[in-house]
Amino acid sequence: MRVRTDLNISLDGYAAPPPDTGTPDNPLGEDWSRLVAPYVATRTFQANVLGNLDTGTTGVNDRYAIEYFEGTGAEIMGAGKFGLHMFGDDPDWRGWWGENPPFHQPVFVLTHSAPRPSIEMEGGTVFHFVSAPPAEVLAMAVEAADGADVRVGGGPTMVRDYLRAGLIDVIHLAVTPIILGQGENLWDDLRNIDLRYAAASEAGEDGVSHITFTRRNLPD
Amino acid sequence: MRVRTDLNISLDGYAAPPPDTGTPDNPLGEDWSRLVAPYVATRTFQANVLGNLDTGTTGVNDRYAIEYFEGTGAEIMGAGKFGLHMFGDDPDWRGWWGENPPFHQPVFVLTHSAPRPSIEMEGGTVFHFVSAPPAEVLAMAVEAADGADVRVGGGPTMVRDYLRAGLIDVIHLAVTPIILGQGENLWDDLRNIDLRYAAASEAGEDGVSHITFTRRNLPD
Repeated sequence: MRVRTDLNISLDGYAAPPPDTGTPDNPLGEDWSRLVAPYVATRTFQANVLGNLDTGTTGVNDRYAIEYFEGTGAEIMGAGKFGLHMFGDDPDWRGWWGENPPFHQPVFVLTHSAPRPSIEMEGGTVFHFVSAPPAEVLAMAVEAADGADVRVGGGPTMVRDYLRAGLIDVIHLAVTPIILGQGENLWDDLRNIDLRYAAASEAGEDGVSHITFTRRNLPD
Repeated sequence: MRVRTDLNISLDGYAAPPPDTGTPDNPLGEDWSRLVAPYVATRTFQANVLGNLDTGTTGVNDRYAIEYFEGTGAEIMGAGKFGLHMFGDDPDWRGWWGENPPFHQPVFVLTHSAPRPSIEMEGGTVFHFVSAPPAEVLAMAVEAADGADVRVGGGPTMVRDYLRAGLIDVIHLAVTPIILGQGENLWDDLRNIDLRYAAASEAGEDGVSHITFTRRNLPD
């Protein structure tokens, strides 16, 4: 069992756009579209998230997309990624992903607000809403994953919390060769975090660099 | 003729350590040592800069090191890289590189201080000290390079000046997988600079990603 995170970041380290940069047609804004464009272009994203079959790229970027959707048994995500507070704390909000979200596993949504009941979706996704420190939520996710890996899903603020707490074993970054200069920077307050990890690089398409940090002395 | 720059940067964008972080034994400090370690390890750096023959790595990182030392006919560098003001403006200072520096071509050192005479070194390096806007210094270097490429050599502050002025055709970055969190960030005030360029990535050893930006619509 490994705890892993997978993020798209810009070459200057931004993993999420500034708040309120989107439009109704493009809720996360143009920066986000550019950041994730190589990932969205993959055959796996097209099929698994958008339901577009038999289209998309099939190279290195797609291989990482396939790995993303395989092998984890539970995910932890921040309230922002779920959209919990986007619509006036609407108690009927069920996430961005429709009735059959692409997770197909238990998802623990971090929240400091009032507890709400879990939501069971189609296809195996169950959203649980939890308010607890990183290590405690991780323990819940590890138990739910039943031996499979656990994903720390983002956004970057909660990924940084987990990194600072020393709780992440594998960090896969798809570095898109764009300079955003604004937004939420993954690396804030993480000086020398790399010392705990061994790093490897693999070139993807469209100038993307896939950088994987694996915690040193990690048991197989 | 192309204008190119080659820099080692950290994964969070730092291309130089903060001022005054060094020690007498290690003038640029531990951050700099970690940043350039994969480059210093190459056979080409060992031979061309340190005079250590028949030692060093011979993979992708070394191929970029070989390219670094070939094909330019002149370099422009900032006063800081030359060390112009490091020692009380010592008029006898001749740079860090001994009597036979690894440039073997004219080098234009930017300075706002009093003009000083050019210094002719062994092996073809001549240091010229110039005070002029980026485009004017570039014109001098282009003429001196006589059809060969021109290197914008750094530090990052002057590279950013040249990037903002739209004067650089090819940007090669060796991205070392370390998080420094301090120093001089290459990307400050360069949001969307990538839109002018096509990007390609190639994986090196030790987790290094070589990212090359080539200006769009550049004539061959």
